[in-house]
Amino acid sequence: MNIAILFGGSSFEHEISIVSAITMKKVLKNTVLTYIFVSADRKFYLIDSEKINSKLFSSGAYRKSKELTLKQGAFVIDGMFGSKTVEIDVALNLIHGRDGEDGKISSMMEFFSIPFISPRTEASILSYNKLYTKFLAESLGVKSVAYEYLSKSDERKVTMDYPIIIKPVRLGSSIGVSIVRGPSELEYALDVAFEFDSDVIIEPFVEGVKEYNLAGCFTSEWEFSIIEEPQKEIFLDFEKKYMDFSRDSKVLAADIESSLERKIQESFKKIYDPLFLGSIIRCDFFVIEDEVYLNEINPIPGSMANYLFDDFEGMLKRVAKSLPKEQKITVNYQYIHSIQNAKGKA
Amino acid sequence: MNIAILFGGSSFEHEISIVSAITMKKVLKNTVLTYIFVSADRKFYLIDSEKINSKLFSSGAYRKSKELTLKQGAFVIDGMFGSKTVEIDVALNLIHGRDGEDGKISSMMEFFSIPFISPRTEASILSYNKLYTKFLAESLGVKSVAYEYLSKSDERKVTMDYPIIIKPVRLGSSIGVSIVRGPSELEYALDVAFEFDSDVIIEPFVEGVKEYNLAGCFTSEWEFSIIEEPQKEIFLDFEKKYMDFSRDSKVLAADIESSLERKIQESFKKIYDPLFLGSIIRCDFFVIEDEVYLNEINPIPGSMANYLFDDFEGMLKRVAKSLPKEQKITVNYQYIHSIQNAKGKA
Repeated sequence: MNIAILFGGSSFEHEISIVSAITMKKVLKNTVLTYIFVSADRKFYLIDSEKINSKLFSSGAYRKSKELTLKQGAFVIDGMFGSKTVEIDVALNLIHGRDGEDGKISSMMEFFSIPFISPRTEASILSYNKLYTKFLAESLGVKSVAYEYLSKSDERKVTMDYPIIIKPVRLGSSIGVSIVRGPSELEYALDVAFEFDSDVIIEPFVEGVKEYNLAGCFTSEWEFSIIEEPQKEIFLDFEKKYMDFSRDSKVLAADIESSLERKIQESFKKIYDPLFLGSIIRCDFFVIEDEVYLNEINPIPGSMANYLFDDFEGMLKRVAKSLPKEQKITVNYQYIHSIQNAKGKA
Repeated sequence: MNIAILFGGSSFEHEISIVSAITMKKVLKNTVLTYIFVSADRKFYLIDSEKINSKLFSSGAYRKSKELTLKQGAFVIDGMFGSKTVEIDVALNLIHGRDGEDGKISSMMEFFSIPFISPRTEASILSYNKLYTKFLAESLGVKSVAYEYLSKSDERKVTMDYPIIIKPVRLGSSIGVSIVRGPSELEYALDVAFEFDSDVIIEPFVEGVKEYNLAGCFTSEWEFSIIEEPQKEIFLDFEKKYMDFSRDSKVLAADIESSLERKIQESFKKIYDPLFLGSIIRCDFFVIEDEVYLNEINPIPGSMANYLFDDFEGMLKRVAKSLPKEQKITVNYQYIHSIQNAKGKA
């Protein structure tokens, strides 16, 4: 199977996407990989998978690579004597943050009829925006923590008790996130968050809350990762998370009761099915007094959370073979024909 | 100003989009129009605006037009001796239903940095799907009518009193919609709706409910249409709606109290700002006992609801000049540089 890795993007997480993409080479040893880079100015480049390394991008040398164009059915290389199709079986959307998680890549892949592993556009919009994730969870009967919501132009008023955590609604990887322990810290934390987004979500910060991550997908059956209890130093800052995105070594499963494991899996299923079909996602949960709360959905997790799975490479291929199909719509111009006929008779 | 009209699409409403597009020629008399057709198989064609008529499409003759490719910054015509940019100032997304209203066009225009008049992707997803519109309305403090929700695989159980109205969640123009007066009609109505969508929404059908439509946008100020009381024969079937999409003659404003008009405008503002900036939408409201309920959002209304505005052409140009800007993201490879430096020292 030939998998195209789409990475980069006009995103605050552009660099960690490069790290995720390079990690795939170590993880997908029995797969042909075609690397397609989306530059920060949103051009597509075909990157030689033999030569891929982080310096290729930071130095700007990637610009010497062949530029690609999207045509119906494929990426193509334009040349002097017509265009040449880039032969792939499926694209894996590995662009973290904007472009990858906000529905742009999924919209383009669907429009141009390129099979792709990624949340579809509805799923992207509802998981990329943390406010909409709250709506989604609520409608599916999955608990999530209490929240308040502020737009840049709103009065900066918080009614919740401190400490609180402030998050830009549309970003991942802890970018722009602050823990605020009292009113005196509020202004600065909001300034930081509003640097990155026009809207923020505010939640109570629960010291020492139990956090569990579960990744998975549905192929012909449910395929779940182990449940990980993420290491926390309050929360990972961006640089640590960045290093974390290159992970390819296995971690230990969290030591939890099987009844709690099942509860977490049931919450995952409610979120995933059917909205996220065709994607591998990670859901991060809090457990408070034995109740499971959705914290966040990671629609494109760092290095695809490969280190949480026993057989990541096999699973990726099974996902590729069980992608949701877009509904077929036949356009037959019957209304235009009938109007033309009516006019003809008049 | 040169406005590109994007129309067609892989949509059940492909044909009415053609009608909407042709109507623009009658309405936008002092504007240079560039017609870009999205065929049912999703290729872009540059259509000669002098020759545009419905037969060009129903006969398949459009395929002789020049095919276009999306490149960063523009649509281009590929030719033997390099590619030629199609010069436009702004694109108007006039694709009803799938592709136009589900975020595909907005995603592509944003990705390829082409200025466009249309709901952005978040706004598209929340208005194209009637279930998500309910979430949105609720979160904004706008009332909407009670509803139940069924997926194709769910048990076909309705707990609401009859008569009810069944709508596919993702379609406009009354496609697949039925009024069901009793349990004996339920199965057939659901069969019809599930022909078009995997999910349906069910609402009480209120005989003779007052319905009012308001279109508008925000440019440097609020620009509202007159409020229309749509003519109803229970509800318009597809063929009547289809004819309706070619409207360009003015209608009379509904005869309502100015206090109710203000209430309707206030509900519109709550929905529109800031999510729908950059677009002209129509909101359809019910009024029950002097309370305003959101019925539907029409993110790309038929013929852009031009017939409801005094100065549609002027407004379109003002919208084009007040489009929301995407946040600027600078990628400077600082993390990759710092890791490379750390490695160098090791």
